Amino acid sequence: MILPLFYVDDIIKRALAEDINYVDVASDYLIPENQRDKAYLVAKEDGVLCGLEIAMRVFTLLDGTFSFTLHFKDGDAVKKGDIIAEYEGKTVFLLKGERTALNLLQQLSGVATATAKAVKGVEGTNASIADTRKTVPTLRALQKYAVTCGGGKNHRFNLSDAAMLKDNHIDAGGGIENAVKKLREKIGHTVKIEVETRNLDEVYQALDAGADIIMLDNMSVGEMKEAVALVGGRALTEASGGITPENVREIAETGVDIISLGAITHSFKALDISMKMVK
Amino acid sequence: MILPLFYVDDIIKRALAEDINYVDVASDYLIPENQRDKAYLVAKEDGVLCGLEIAMRVFTLLDGTFSFTLHFKDGDAVKKGDIIAEYEGKTVFLLKGERTALNLLQQLSGVATATAKAVKGVEGTNASIADTRKTVPTLRALQKYAVTCGGGKNHRFNLSDAAMLKDNHIDAGGGIENAVKKLREKIGHTVKIEVETRNLDEVYQALDAGADIIMLDNMSVGEMKEAVALVGGRALTEASGGITPENVREIAETGVDIISLGAITHSFKALDISMKMVK
Amino acid sequence: MILPLFYVDDIIKRALAEDINYVDVASDYLIPENQRDKAYLVAKEDGVLCGLEIAMRVFTLLDGTFSFTLHFKDGDAVKKGDIIAEYEGKTVFLLKGERTALNLLQQLSGVATATAKAVKGVEGTNASIADTRKTVPTLRALQKYAVTCGGGKNHRFNLSDAAMLKDNHIDAGGGIENAVKKLREKIGHTVKIEVETRNLDEVYQALDAGADIIMLDNMSVGEMKEAVALVGGRALTEASGGITPENVREIAETGVDIISLGAITHSFKALDISMKMVK
Amino acid sequence: MILPLFYVDDIIKRALAEDINYVDVASDYLIPENQRDKAYLVAKEDGVLCGLEIAMRVFTLLDGTFSFTLHFKDGDAVKKGDIIAEYEGKTVFLLKGERTALNLLQQLSGVATATAKAVKGVEGTNASIADTRKTVPTLRALQKYAVTCGGGKNHRFNLSDAAMLKDNHIDAGGGIENAVKKLREKIGHTVKIEVETRNLDEVYQALDAGADIIMLDNMSVGEMKEAVALVGGRALTEASGGITPENVREIAETGVDIISLGAITHSFKALDISMKMVK
Amino acid sequence: MILPLFYVDDIIKRALAEDINYVDVASDYLIPENQRDKAYLVAKEDGVLCGLEIAMRVFTLLDGTFSFTLHFKDGDAVKKGDIIAEYEGKTVFLLKGERTALNLLQQLSGVATATAKAVKGVEGTNASIADTRKTVPTLRALQKYAVTCGGGKNHRFNLSDAAMLKDNHIDAGGGIENAVKKLREKIGHTVKIEVETRNLDEVYQALDAGADIIMLDNMSVGEMKEAVALVGGRALTEASGGITPENVREIAETGVDIISLGAITHSFKALDISMKMVK
Amino acid sequence: MILPLFYVDDIIKRALAEDINYVDVASDYLIPENQRDKAYLVAKEDGVLCGLEIAMRVFTLLDGTFSFTLHFKDGDAVKKGDIIAEYEGKTVFLLKGERTALNLLQQLSGVATATAKAVKGVEGTNASIADTRKTVPTLRALQKYAVTCGGGKNHRFNLSDAAMLKDNHIDAGGGIENAVKKLREKIGHTVKIEVETRNLDEVYQALDAGADIIMLDNMSVGEMKEAVALVGGRALTEASGGITPENVREIAETGVDIISLGAITHSFKALDISMKMVK
Repeated sequence: MILPLFYVDDIIKRALAEDINYVDVASDYLIPENQRDKAYLVAKEDGVLCGLEIAMRVFTLLDGTFSFTLHFKDGDAVKKGDIIAEYEGKTVFLLKGERTALNLLQQLSGVATATAKAVKGVEGTNASIADTRKTVPTLRALQKYAVTCGGGKNHRFNLSDAAMLKDNHIDAGGGIENAVKKLREKIGHTVKIEVETRNLDEVYQALDAGADIIMLDNMSVGEMKEAVALVGGRALTEASGGITPENVREIAETGVDIISLGAITHSFKALDISMKMVK
Repeated sequence: MILPLFYVDDIIKRALAEDINYVDVASDYLIPENQRDKAYLVAKEDGVLCGLEIAMRVFTLLDGTFSFTLHFKDGDAVKKGDIIAEYEGKTVFLLKGERTALNLLQQLSGVATATAKAVKGVEGTNASIADTRKTVPTLRALQKYAVTCGGGKNHRFNLSDAAMLKDNHIDAGGGIENAVKKLREKIGHTVKIEVETRNLDEVYQALDAGADIIMLDNMSVGEMKEAVALVGGRALTEASGGITPENVREIAETGVDIISLGAITHSFKALDISMKMVK
Repeated sequence: MILPLFYVDDIIKRALAEDINYVDVASDYLIPENQRDKAYLVAKEDGVLCGLEIAMRVFTLLDGTFSFTLHFKDGDAVKKGDIIAEYEGKTVFLLKGERTALNLLQQLSGVATATAKAVKGVEGTNASIADTRKTVPTLRALQKYAVTCGGGKNHRFNLSDAAMLKDNHIDAGGGIENAVKKLREKIGHTVKIEVETRNLDEVYQALDAGADIIMLDNMSVGEMKEAVALVGGRALTEASGGITPENVREIAETGVDIISLGAITHSFKALDISMKMVK
Repeated sequence: MILPLFYVDDIIKRALAEDINYVDVASDYLIPENQRDKAYLVAKEDGVLCGLEIAMRVFTLLDGTFSFTLHFKDGDAVKKGDIIAEYEGKTVFLLKGERTALNLLQQLSGVATATAKAVKGVEGTNASIADTRKTVPTLRALQKYAVTCGGGKNHRFNLSDAAMLKDNHIDAGGGIENAVKKLREKIGHTVKIEVETRNLDEVYQALDAGADIIMLDNMSVGEMKEAVALVGGRALTEASGGITPENVREIAETGVDIISLGAITHSFKALDISMKMVK
Repeated sequence: MILPLFYVDDIIKRALAEDINYVDVASDYLIPENQRDKAYLVAKEDGVLCGLEIAMRVFTLLDGTFSFTLHFKDGDAVKKGDIIAEYEGKTVFLLKGERTALNLLQQLSGVATATAKAVKGVEGTNASIADTRKTVPTLRALQKYAVTCGGGKNHRFNLSDAAMLKDNHIDAGGGIENAVKKLREKIGHTVKIEVETRNLDEVYQALDAGADIIMLDNMSVGEMKEAVALVGGRALTEASGGITPENVREIAETGVDIISLGAITHSFKALDISMKMVK
Repeated sequence: MILPLFYVDDIIKRALAEDINYVDVASDYLIPENQRDKAYLVAKEDGVLCGLEIAMRVFTLLDGTFSFTLHFKDGDAVKKGDIIAEYEGKTVFLLKGERTALNLLQQLSGVATATAKAVKGVEGTNASIADTRKTVPTLRALQKYAVTCGGGKNHRFNLSDAAMLKDNHIDAGGGIENAVKKLREKIGHTVKIEVETRNLDEVYQALDAGADIIMLDNMSVGEMKEAVALVGGRALTEASGGITPENVREIAETGVDIISLGAITHSFKALDISMKMVK
């Protein structure tokens, strides 16, 4: 996992705090403090994993004696029935950490799985699948990481690290050409400028203005093809808006460089994974 | 909104921090600082709203001069095309806050909408729809609130405020009867005990042990009916496991008191809502 | 200790930060960095312990080489003169951590000791001793844990996990019966409803309304007896208000199920415990 | 109140978070959102107030429409029955904030009241009453402020701002004279040095070493008198250890400059104050 | 100021907390609580301002009644003796906030002033002045903002938002061409790739590999000229290493696009600004 | 290092978070996860070190397998070319932590080096070099520690731990004598009082009032000599204002006890230190 551990720990601690409050009235009052058990994670459906080390970290933060073996790693595909990880620790902490560990693992694997499906949909084309800023509030870094585990690419992380010019920016800037020019004078040299376009005329203007990336916003497949031809590799083209698993391939075949989808981070299905105690 | 404002503010600030970092390179460098605009939120599909005051709070935290009018309130149903809220403020802050406000509103309205569908599915029966602890990590309070906006009820918030006895607790406690008895001696008098059961024999034991709530875990509809009859109102019955929008009514008709669904908080679809600037 | 470690660490770090600021001008400037010492904790009066692992954790967080042996555990009774724990570490950290460790241990043992006295007072009766929400702000979880170490039970932790109907709720709800009914339709099925009553008529109404718990608020011993008889086991009864170590037994003998006392968390005496260096 | 508001707010928010979690199931589900009420605080016993603005701030943070009038200020003495403050706001927030506001006010007034009693005990003598570092973890600043409201003085706040030489420091430093000398070379010029002494010989050494303050630790009243005479105003003298409300005057009459008491911050009785709704 | 207010508030509160702790023993104990005063900020030397709204915010957070008038804005040049701002508020808060306000204002104006000098040094050339990641830990956003106030541009904010390939990356990637190619397959489409080069051969390779930006690291002025000619506008060129106010123009005249300097954020001189009370 | 580790960790985590955000796009995507390397720190100029353990801690927090050997310790002087520390760990974490570790080390060594120069300037005189409250916001504790590494002494840490009477305090207090007297009645006995004076008459008054420390503010060397003579050891004297490396000795030779300099913490030059990978 490439996410810094201290960053992940902070989220885990918040999650544990909301799930445990101060005690686990069932486990703390019934399970002998020194009882130990073995447990494992099993996939209840096919998908792509993300968050394995994070899930194991939940237990490690609760129980210094916890140990585990991973049979898969983030980004791996699993089949229903696969044993994902085996571990051992104090029973009371296995029970206290179970829900938080699963919630994290299932959410992130859901994102990775949704991404992987879209990536598969564009296989063999020029297009990459990218995420958006339509992420679950406060979990963006985790979701962006999950997207890469699913084979997708990360769009900008925040409003500071790339510029996206929309209507309002263009109007305030005095048209596409002026806006791009003004902005180029102010932004750092590592920041790319993307311009949102809705028709070929705007694509032409954006290209002319020297945009690094041209977003083809809610265009028809036909328009997109024309736009891609017009751009001719002089800028990156990004398709966005109204993209579904069903039409993603058709869009990819227009030749666009990037297809960005909000749904992989805002409307995915959690991947079904269970924790079982070894009897 | 019944959530405390300072609690919500903390989440908004985290969300804004990850979305803005330090500047908005497009807006801060192109939009005149004193430009003001009007904008509105419009529903792009039918659903139930949750998070309206939270979304407005995003802008208020950024812009002390922001003002708004709500046409709906949390818990209200909207139709595609409905204008949800109208507002006015500094353009640069409308743009900076847009994504965070929408992410919060769409996620919470997604939960409320998914809940409302399940609630509608059991209309006219004895059953209530309840959430679970399968929530998005760090956003549990917001999601629990959204469930109530959709007409659902909140299951326990955390491991401290109600006891759920599963296999491990029962084994460690020496069977259902002993476990419930031991636990009753230790837990506070405001804490209810729920016992997870997988067959009629366990239902019988749980009832005999004086459980407050009996979970019927992954039982067939036939078994559930028998279980409900066996319990005869002497404890609350909760159906859980394998419940979908398709079978929720059939399950409700067994007479169970509560049907708990994880999907309404872990695998819902964000409600599509847009922000438009008034031209 | 059943409190999660990461939760406790957060409080310890705040406490250390306020006690140390950035250096210990006496110890850092006079004690050789590598000097090591042995020390021990000794009870200066009789009482019940709580916070032993927390106190040891203070030193562990300061000094990775710290080691300790506990001769007692949380919930144990100690006599004046008992050696509670022995430990060894870098002298400079023993001195830096001493006050914070003792403050935590003495405060929590004070709560446990006060609770244990009340528990002893009701020995042999049906009554349990419970705490209240009258706790030291920001230390509720630690104090609630200390109450269980003293043999008491925890009342609700917060306003979310159990409902207590007071005058205002009852007035707004249209009388006891209506209020309980309205509330039952909205609250989750794991949440109990307690009704505050001041006379037998209200007890009768609360019982009739199906309250889970009936608080007998500031009633005379005579009234309590009548109330307990009236309830007849159909709800839990809780005595509250004006309870002191002197009258706790008399109240317990009325047959009430729970006696809740604010003083055990808001007006207790810290247990006197010293740290001594081994010469 | 001289404490910075942002500092106080942080503690209030933590306290509210632990008391409310996410909703108040009784108030949020029964009290109409727009209902408003008047309420007041009344003293249930005699004492000295501390925390009035803090208590009002609890409500202000919950309810932007809250208003109040204070009839007393921090440091004022109240008699049983005195109306301390009157206020008005949304009923639901009056109920949500009540316990947190009272907990803060009662705890701090308890410290102020305990301090005031000790201060009264030494009236007319040369001695001042001072606090110690034996404070409730995480609430030191609030308690130190409460001590000043009770007429006491603050001893050092933390280990950085004054040096107290105990056995270990003196041993490591090579005796009192050497230790003071070494330390004086290293500490900042604004930091005073206090030396703990247990007999006249040590007092003599400390004086000779140029200690700013000489602590007379657990000395008899007779020894203290001799010590004070020996010092003769060339250093401040501080009595500490075994001091109670009963013997504080006798100790003050030895002529010591400062008498420090741990009990006023670790073992005080909360001042009984109630909130009443105006019917 | 384009920095989000809630972000700035967090830093101000930390700064105030370390500067005030809990009280201001001089001001709180001597200045009447209701005394009000007027004060102003005056430049003690020439420079460029940054942090004016931040400095005023310090007082606003302490004192709700504080009001101010700014005579300059961030980015403006001031001359020695200029009155920068005038304000009015409670005396005790003017004194409590003075040092924190000045520390922030002087530090940020120091960065802006140092930047402005470098910007002036390259006036009339093609080169822009950019900052680096050599910033004061925890204050990067503030310093990056100050750089823009001085007329400079911001280099990447962090390791996520632009890629800089150094020796180790190139070695691990199998040479410049392979490394850039591999990376391009993985990074998001908004992320630029910069390659660090030390000689013309590496410049050639980087250009060939399609690097977006080519860093000319510690090259002589002669080499830089050749490198710029070789690149011929097909990538951005950035000079870095060994750049001083003395040689910045000579370097700019090589035709490089960007000159990045660490010293403007790590070794600048605070701008001398005083706060004076109006007598 | 005498700073508490948990305190330092908090600053490191903030610094890492701003420098890394969530990934290092160059290192995470190009360096094999298990690649390990050796590296070392080398001084690029002469100076005094501070922050070595802090710099190593950066890597330890990122990489549990990191190990290091220090060839110097905080407070040691280094010469250009000296190898300061050698270490080994996962390459990806050496690269991720490099900038944060160096930023901390260079900033703190810069303070220590600037302090050491001033200390050397007063060698052989009675004067000590002290810092001020003119520190980098949020890093005061680290800078104060660095000052001691450079051989300087710490002035007061904050407004709570020593009193400095300026014009406003003296005016409000009714003149120097009255102000000191009033304050002495209120402040704790461990708090020293320093009075700012601008001429001999004020020095005389301050002395007469019993000030512990008399600040000679912006006085000429001649005046200072007279002031020191006047005080005659009955209070500490502190020179402040307009002090530079050039005139520090001249000022020390007036006989003042302390010379306080803001520049050592607000306008120092970072010490140039590099990290090199062992090839």
